[in-house]
This record gives sequence, C-alpha cells and structure tokens, in this order.
Amino acid sequence: MDQLKRNERIGAIMYILTSRPNEIFTYNYFSKMFNVKKPSISGDISIMKEIAKKLDIGKIETIPGANGGVKFLPKSRKGETEILLEDLCRRLSDGERIIPGGFIYMMDILYTPSIIRNIGKIFANEFNHKNIDYVVTVETKGIPIALMTADILNVPLIVIRKNTKITEGPTVNINYVSGSTKVIQTMSLSKKVLKEGSKVLVIDDFMKAGGTIKGINDMMNEFNAEVVGVGIFVSTKSPEKKLVDDYISLIQLEAVDEQNGKIYLKSNFEYLEQFK
Amino acid sequence: MDQLKRNERIGAIMYILTSRPNEIFTYNYFSKMFNVKKPSISGDISIMKEIAKKLDIGKIETIPGANGGVKFLPKSRKGETEILLEDLCRRLSDGERIIPGGFIYMMDILYTPSIIRNIGKIFANEFNHKNIDYVVTVETKGIPIALMTADILNVPLIVIRKNTKITEGPTVNINYVSGSTKVIQTMSLSKKVLKEGSKVLVIDDFMKAGGTIKGINDMMNEFNAEVVGVGIFVSTKSPEKKLVDDYISLIQLEAVDEQNGKIYLKSNFEYLEQFK
Repeated sequence: MDQLKRNERIGAIMYILTSRPNEIFTYNYFSKMFNVKKPSISGDISIMKEIAKKLDIGKIETIPGANGGVKFLPKSRKGETEILLEDLCRRLSDGERIIPGGFIYMMDILYTPSIIRNIGKIFANEFNHKNIDYVVTVETKGIPIALMTADILNVPLIVIRKNTKITEGPTVNINYVSGSTKVIQTMSLSKKVLKEGSKVLVIDDFMKAGGTIKGINDMMNEFNAEVVGVGIFVSTKSPEKKLVDDYISLIQLEAVDEQNGKIYLKSNFEYLEQFK
Repeated sequence: MDQLKRNERIGAIMYILTSRPNEIFTYNYFSKMFNVKKPSISGDISIMKEIAKKLDIGKIETIPGANGGVKFLPKSRKGETEILLEDLCRRLSDGERIIPGGFIYMMDILYTPSIIRNIGKIFANEFNHKNIDYVVTVETKGIPIALMTADILNVPLIVIRKNTKITEGPTVNINYVSGSTKVIQTMSLSKKVLKEGSKVLVIDDFMKAGGTIKGINDMMNEFNAEVVGVGIFVSTKSPEKKLVDDYISLIQLEAVDEQNGKIYLKSNFEYLEQFK
C-alpha cells in the first residue's frame, strides 16, 4: 500500500480496530500494512486511546508480551444507555403490544439492528471480564441480541433448539419444565458444538419464572460447561422467586393490565455494574 | 466536547460512520459535535473517502440536498472474499460434517460472528441498490447471516416462524411443501410485522429444491410485499430445476458421497456482481 499520511493512518487503524471488536492486532500487523516503523504505530494508538476517551466510545486496550497487541471493546455511553432503556420502556408500554396470556409483542425491537447492537454492547461490557468462550441462547427471539453480544465479545454463538432437528447430527436432549406454564418441553443441542470446560454467557430476550434458563443451565452441565453469567432483556417482576438466582435484566416487566390495556415497565439501568 | 485535533476528529468520525453502516449523518451533526465549521468537516470527509479507497473497505457516500449528509457501506475486498469462500468450501468439505440424508453440519460456521459478518457484507453489497426495507428469513439457522445483512443495510430483520407462537399475537399462516422431502409444513408471521408495499430481501443458509423460499415468496404476497432479491449461503446443485429462479448463492454443494465420506463444494465467487 502507498504510504498513508498520519491522519489517514489513524482513520484506517480506527476502522480496523473498531470493526472487529475484541480481536487482538499486533503492532507488527499495522507496521507491515502501512509500511511504517512500530514507534509510529505506537504513537497512532496513543492518539486513538485519547479519541476513545474523549468520545467515551469504549476501551482501546494494549496487551503487552509476545502475543500482545491492541484491541477495542465498544461501550455505550452512560447517558445514552439510560435514555435508550427509558425509551424502550416507553415504547414497550404501548397497550397495543398486549398479547393474551400476559405476554408483550417485542419483535419490532428485538429485530432492529440499531437497537440490539446497543443491547449487545451493554451485555458485553457487563460480562467481558468473565473470559467467555461462547454466548448461548435458545431459539428463536433471543438469537439477535445473543448474536450481537457474541459479535462484540468476538466469540461464537450457540443456539439450543427446541426440538431435535435432523440437520444437526447427534444431539444431547434434556427435558425442562416451563416455570410459568408448567408444560414439559424438550431442548436439544448438537453434541459437537461445545468444547468441554468452556465458560458460557447465557442471553435471552424474556424471562418469567426462569424455567428455560434453568433448562439451559442443566444442558450446560451435560457439556461440563460453566455458566458464568445470564443476561436477560426483559424479566417479569412476578414470580419474585425465580428458578435461577444470578442474572442481570435490562428491563423489568412489573405488570400487564389486560383489562385496561396498560403495561408497566421499569428500567434496570441503575443496577448495571459498568456505569457504577 | 473539547476541540479535537484534525487527526483525532478523523478517527472519531471514522468510528461513528463505520460503526453505524448505511445511516446518514448530516455535516451539521458533526459540525456541532466537534464544534468546528462545516468546511472543516467537509475536508475530513474527503480524507476519509481517500482512506476508504486506499484500504478498499467500502464506500463513503455523500448525499446532497436538504436531507443530505454522509454514510458508509462496508465492503469486503475482492481478494479476501475469494479466499474466504474458498476457505469455507475447504472447511465444509470435511467428511465428518456429513449428516445422514445428504445434509452437512454448518452450525460452527453459521454462528461465528467474524465469518458471518463478512457473509453479511457480501449479501448487502449484492443487493444494496434495490432499496430494501426489510431482510426476511425463516427460523432458525439462517437468522445470524440474515441479521448481519440487515445490520449492514440498516434495515429491520423479519423472522418467519415455523409454527404459530402464542407470544406473537395474530398471525398470517401459510402451508408450503418442502421441495426435497415433499412434507407439508406451516410457516407463520405476525400480522403487524410488515408494512404493505415493502421491498424485502430474503436470506437463508441452505436451499435444496427451494420449497421454503417459495413459501416465503407466497407469504410476502400475502403482505403485498415485493421480494427484490434472494441470497443463499449454500445451495445444492441437484435438483437443477428449483422452485425459485432468481437467487444468488455463495457456495454450491455439488454432491455428498455418504459412503466414502466425501463432500464436494464449489465457490460461486465468480458470479458475484460486486466484484465484476
């Protein structure tokens, strides 16, 4: 490549780092790519750290040592996250979203990339220090937020199926009881999908009693994998006693008043560790 | 915000543009954010266009007029895409991936963000000129590549369910015949998910005879939506006559030799319009 001016090089490195979050790039990689000495790259990285700090867009981290280099973890700004969660509460509280049975329609939000990218950022920052190997979810509606989280953490996603599918080869199946409906269901996961001893982060869109999440925990036990965190987009206030204890939810569904067409939601922003 | 130096500002604008693909930002937005006059921003954008060209990472496009501004569409490099597709063919041709019935195990690839981000880029660039309103897929394995495509195009994703779910409210249901197994199945989509007259891009992971894609076409007809493109990750060579004519697939599955544990695949790189 032609030699770039410093400001061109900064734009270029910024793009590479931020478009592949949590991936480590060596100084050597950039040094070769731009045909300049390592101290110049080092200077560029310092400027970029300054930019990330001033804009409050995340952390550019330098990893020392032979396998060292530099990586970027994007973060949502505190103020913007607070507004985002409040805005989502407002949008989700629209009475027309009520679905008989105490559910609320959330698909438009769960499937809009610009929104769930931010949700993924929140989960990634909440659990980034746990050395996660995989993000795990169960089909279907939680897949997009789980994928966005996996994308930012730079780890593979694993999707547990609700029934055995012929296109996935040998599977491990477990039965679980939905905590709210008491119905016995089956979940299924391909045997070769997960390495033994992995650390996994469980992400899902909705939790009532926690039966599904408990089922995922049981499934992970079968694979000798450790669940190091659980992130839920919306959890219900009732039942207060869930089948899992340790989880983070972004929004609490306090009540659905079907008769009067009212939904009551509360942002859990204040409980997020990353903004404390 | 404190006044940034030009190279800091370039790094910052580069981040904002590239982390929110296909979103239009006005010069005014940046001018206010960085507290500098519009001609300076205009100069920054020119430098960034130069960077995008030199690095071959996509197009920074200026939109004139009152609603104008600047946006970024990321693109995979020609050489890298050619290598990526060949590498995927090689990895997918591992005999251990054979699943009885002529299927191949692809989950590890379909659920790895760093791979499917590139696949999303390929599809987005192939169909970007079609003014797409939504990306549509059917659950489950196609969701991640469909979401990545939707993310880059900056449009919502729509996921058709294989059965009616109580948590989605009133739905439109259609029956379709799987072209390869001849089994009648049902697909279901929430009534309120799609605006009439929309243009949609259909994305899926695998196509044999095309029965599922034809089902999606029929479903879109019910919503008076127009299918303006179909992108498939892997399509089979046989049957040669599919139930849909107009599609792009990235990889062709030529044959699965179950007896000898061999899979034959071919990259369709040469048919991609964006690299012609």
